Amino acid sequence: MSLDPVALAQDLIRRPSVTPADEGAMDVLQQALESAGFACRRMRFGEIENLYARRGTAAPNLCFAGHTDVVPVGDAGAWLKPPFAGVVEEGVLYGRGAVDMKGAIAAFAAAASEAQVPGSLSFLITGDEEGAAEDGTARLVEALAAEGERIDHVVLGEPTSSSRLGDQIKIGRRGSLNAWITVDGAQGHVAYPQQAANPIPPLVRLLARLQGRVLDEGHPGFQPSNLEVTTIDVGNPATNVIPAQAKARLNIRFNPAHDGQGLIDWLIAECAAEQAGFSGKVGLVAKLTGNAFLTEPGPFVEVCAQAVEEVLGRRPELSTTGGISDARFIRKLCPVVELGLVNATMHAVDECTPVEHIADLTRVYAALIARYFTAFG
Amino acid sequence: MSLDPVALAQDLIRRPSVTPADEGAMDVLQQALESAGFACRRMRFGEIENLYARRGTAAPNLCFAGHTDVVPVGDAGAWLKPPFAGVVEEGVLYGRGAVDMKGAIAAFAAAASEAQVPGSLSFLITGDEEGAAEDGTARLVEALAAEGERIDHVVLGEPTSSSRLGDQIKIGRRGSLNAWITVDGAQGHVAYPQQAANPIPPLVRLLARLQGRVLDEGHPGFQPSNLEVTTIDVGNPATNVIPAQAKARLNIRFNPAHDGQGLIDWLIAECAAEQAGFSGKVGLVAKLTGNAFLTEPGPFVEVCAQAVEEVLGRRPELSTTGGISDARFIRKLCPVVELGLVNATMHAVDECTPVEHIADLTRVYAALIARYFTAFG
Ligand SMILES: [Zn+2]
Ligand SMILES: [Zn+2]
Repeated sequence: MSLDPVALAQDLIRRPSVTPADEGAMDVLQQALESAGFACRRMRFGEIENLYARRGTAAPNLCFAGHTDVVPVGDAGAWLKPPFAGVVEEGVLYGRGAVDMKGAIAAFAAAASEAQVPGSLSFLITGDEEGAAEDGTARLVEALAAEGERIDHVVLGEPTSSSRLGDQIKIGRRGSLNAWITVDGAQGHVAYPQQAANPIPPLVRLLARLQGRVLDEGHPGFQPSNLEVTTIDVGNPATNVIPAQAKARLNIRFNPAHDGQGLIDWLIAECAAEQAGFSGKVGLVAKLTGNAFLTEPGPFVEVCAQAVEEVLGRRPELSTTGGISDARFIRKLCPVVELGLVNATMHAVDECTPVEHIADLTRVYAALIARYFTAFG
Repeated sequence: MSLDPVALAQDLIRRPSVTPADEGAMDVLQQALESAGFACRRMRFGEIENLYARRGTAAPNLCFAGHTDVVPVGDAGAWLKPPFAGVVEEGVLYGRGAVDMKGAIAAFAAAASEAQVPGSLSFLITGDEEGAAEDGTARLVEALAAEGERIDHVVLGEPTSSSRLGDQIKIGRRGSLNAWITVDGAQGHVAYPQQAANPIPPLVRLLARLQGRVLDEGHPGFQPSNLEVTTIDVGNPATNVIPAQAKARLNIRFNPAHDGQGLIDWLIAECAAEQAGFSGKVGLVAKLTGNAFLTEPGPFVEVCAQAVEEVLGRRPELSTTGGISDARFIRKLCPVVELGLVNATMHAVDECTPVEHIADLTRVYAALIARYFTAFG
């Protein structure tokens, strides 16, 4: 049975699956995939619904990955259309998740429902991408690997298009890490600094050194790595008081010239340098969100790029810019390329996509499936 | 009529004159001084009670300066004695203002009540020292100068003693200024720093330069000048967001090697250096609390020091350390020396002084008055 991608996208949008809620979104997708001949396995981790669906047993196994969860509505009063109604007006489908990424899930499901392939098609879908991402793709990938399930290549349906559909696909992502620095000193009166230990000077010196380092000048296929101090907080209301504590937080987005642990080691060393000679305590907590990765241009990237070019008449830019995605987990399993709708309204009020884009993306995915099994089948 | 300094101190403590409240404290003092033959003039500025009292018309005019207002009780439940009852237990007088500085006012009033001098004695008392200090000594000094009232020397009764009564008198004070720095940038996502303008890097660089400058190595009679950054605040809860604004505040305590406007000009220049090349705005507000000053050691300082030595058998240290006081206003009128009780409990819970200290300080002030008119009469 062949699926209508717009109707399926509407059905999915009508389930207000704001992370970690599912609200039946996974059931809607499962029923659609079962009607298209997929064997579905629900894999629940913690409170999160996850789904692995496969049709066929032969290799290669081309997998579509995505997430049914969505970010919150935000300022509900600012929406001109109801966020969970799935209304189509003048050819535009409105609703939270329209582009990120229920529309793309529906498009791939529709393309898969019509495809006859000499190998396998599969879906790896989580309900925890916009949240902590701890009980979603990371654990799905781990569980499937432990079972020996073989997935050869993944297309991740994130909204990678920038201003026109298909103008950009992502073949890698920078890594990201956050660090929290807490300097504990000793409170006192500003007139008697020798009786206090102001935590601000070591913190300022430390941050000046950290933000002053040029991490690199770029890496093939990537922007330069970048460190941003995102907050500094002391909260001392008194002009004549030296505070007891000062805190800061920073984020590093880094290309494959670095690995996360190496950067954390650098932060540890710089904190230790500031600790030396300071009577208080310089504390660091660092958390790696994901390392940088690149799916090297080659046959799989070409299958994706040429599918876009065949259907839409434009060659997509092979990009590694922007934030992080679940591709950071998937790439441990196999090569991954991200290709989806236009991201202009993602996470914003009145998220929407022209229904024509969903139809076009369905055709791109269909071309991609065909080209994939020609290249790898 | 001669006054009992402990009874007067108790009466004053029983008026809860937390700035700007007076609660009858000035009336208590005025009645005591009138009974001792002083002509009293109340000078009200804004909501603040002030008092100028004088006995005699001849020169020289030795003036005692002080304040009847007190700082708040703070953690009321932590006091073992009621803060406004003026209780004496086992020879110790408890209460807010006992040392800062109702005890010293009472001691000088008692000493003055018994003194016969060939010139004049006067009192310059404000109810606004612990607060904004805008409607107190600053305006009193201005008004008296405008009238042509001549005051030759001032003893200010701040609690200058450190561990033993009379171990320290103040002959100068460092200057103080506060500055507020606000950097406005443009908010954005950490993954797209080129589309934002993070206000933190310029602020961190600026503060690193400011705190890194050695202002001086000291000045005759003074500690080195010192800059403390007292707070930095951004308040950005989101790890993936570049904030729009960052603020900091600093305090400079400076000796006579600097003048306040010169330091403000330096801050302005450093902010301008950071503004150059930054797309946002670096804003500065600086407020001079008072310039540094020194009453050069000489006959008047010797009168004060020798009075301490005669009565208590110890030579006081001539200090310029610590915070600011109303001496910064008085010194525009004439030389000023600060001499008072032990400051260990000032502004603290269970503020208190041995009653013996009040009696001793009364004798020190009496000796000071006698020596003064021998030296200058
Ligand atoms: Zn997404
Ligand atoms: Zn005081």
